[in-house]
Amino acid sequence: MEHGAQKSSSVLQKKYRVLVGVTGSVAALKLPLLIAELLKITGVEVKVVTTERAKHFYNAQEIPVTLYSDEDEWQTCVIRAWDLSKPLLFCPAMNTAMWEHPITAQQVEQLKGFGYTEIPCVVKKLVCGDEGQSFCMSSDSSCTSAALILKGCTFFCRVALL
Amino acid sequence: MEHGAQKSSSVLQKKYRVLVGVTGSVAALKLPLLIAELLKITGVEVKVVTTERAKHFYNAQEIPVTLYSDEDEWQTCVIRAWDLSKPLLFCPAMNTAMWEHPITAQQVEQLKGFGYTEIPCVVKKLVCGDEGQSFCMSSDSSCTSAALILKGCTFFCRVALL
Amino acid sequence: MEHGAQKSSSVLQKKYRVLVGVTGSVAALKLPLLIAELLKITGVEVKVVTTERAKHFYNAQEIPVTLYSDEDEWQTCVIRAWDLSKPLLFCPAMNTAMWEHPITAQQVEQLKGFGYTEIPCVVKKLVCGDEGQSFCMSSDSSCTSAALILKGCTFFCRVALL
Repeated sequence: MEHGAQKSSSVLQKKYRVLVGVTGSVAALKLPLLIAELLKITGVEVKVVTTERAKHFYNAQEIPVTLYSDEDEWQTCVIRAWDLSKPLLFCPAMNTAMWEHPITAQQVEQLKGFGYTEIPCVVKKLVCGDEGQSFCMSSDSSCTSAALILKGCTFFCRVALL
Repeated sequence: MEHGAQKSSSVLQKKYRVLVGVTGSVAALKLPLLIAELLKITGVEVKVVTTERAKHFYNAQEIPVTLYSDEDEWQTCVIRAWDLSKPLLFCPAMNTAMWEHPITAQQVEQLKGFGYTEIPCVVKKLVCGDEGQSFCMSSDSSCTSAALILKGCTFFCRVALL
Repeated sequence: MEHGAQKSSSVLQKKYRVLVGVTGSVAALKLPLLIAELLKITGVEVKVVTTERAKHFYNAQEIPVTLYSDEDEWQTCVIRAWDLSKPLLFCPAMNTAMWEHPITAQQVEQLKGFGYTEIPCVVKKLVCGDEGQSFCMSSDSSCTSAALILKGCTFFCRVALL
């Protein structure tokens, strides 16, 4: 018990560093909300790496943390050089036709095969009018999953994957 | 017989929408001819999406239909979000060394695995001087294949695939 | 014996054409040294194709041979159209985290499956401070391998593979 309490205390004092990657999907409009939710977690330091296309969907003024712009595939390089001893979460979000294309399942399986963790998307009414797969920000899904994995160590969370 | 005639009549009245995608291969110089042939088919509406590189091989003034320019991988996005209940035809055309590279057969098989239809290329004298695989515009091959599939529904025809 | 001597003489008179491809890895700083070593081999003609990113790591003034700049994936096209009857050597060099990512082994296996020859990298202290996989220029490894294969015919040597 004593040992467990010490360990828990040590975990709480540890600083968690979260890098959020965001790409050009409509789901990127949820970025300010995601950042706000992450910053509510004690001991979390958040930074964002964004593609130029993703900026179309949110207001950079609403992001209160360091924002690295990705003009030249920098985000891809970060993932290519990811230390796999640290968790990487990915949150696919896309139009139904994209989601149902057989290459999507192949790509999701490949990412999971690398040891990445999928935060499954939910079906909802999309901006384009179709029903579709979207990144869900409800309190009982994505952020909770993220918080649970945070109890481990630093992770990379990709809001949308084209 | 009566029923067949009605069905045929209904098919003829239906409007077929064809999106032709063209990429940077020498075969793209046949684009004006392909469009002209497609427009001879009754009830067909044709649009083109082209890469910037493809424009090097034809004169945009000779294309009498809407031409979408593709400065930012837009053509790739169209295919990524393709509704697979509608046919997609692809017409590989390239230099012999490219064609014989083992990755070509892998890529062609992957495309066919998605349910896309290959319009096979024919061997002919290429602009570079080699014998090679090229998209054939003769009346008894590509356009006929395209027309046959058109009797089904809307399709996407990619003139050249690098 | 007589026949062997004639053959050897004929090989020495033949001109070998080497195209060196270089991409944006720190290992690219060894390019001037690689070119100097290759030019010591009798009957070798050397040309270089470089990406824009690779230029960051070496001084183009120190390259005494034709240097083709690669602004638009030209290097990728050269490899895509490579005549596989001629050898292609590749020399992966990267940070340890990149090297250990499972996609690296998949990519190396795919390249070897095409018939390309890997010049294995060696572990050394990298510029970034980590131990890592780097392209080795010692006289008993890369250049020797290259020279041995040169005894066959023209080849393409890629200094670094991101």
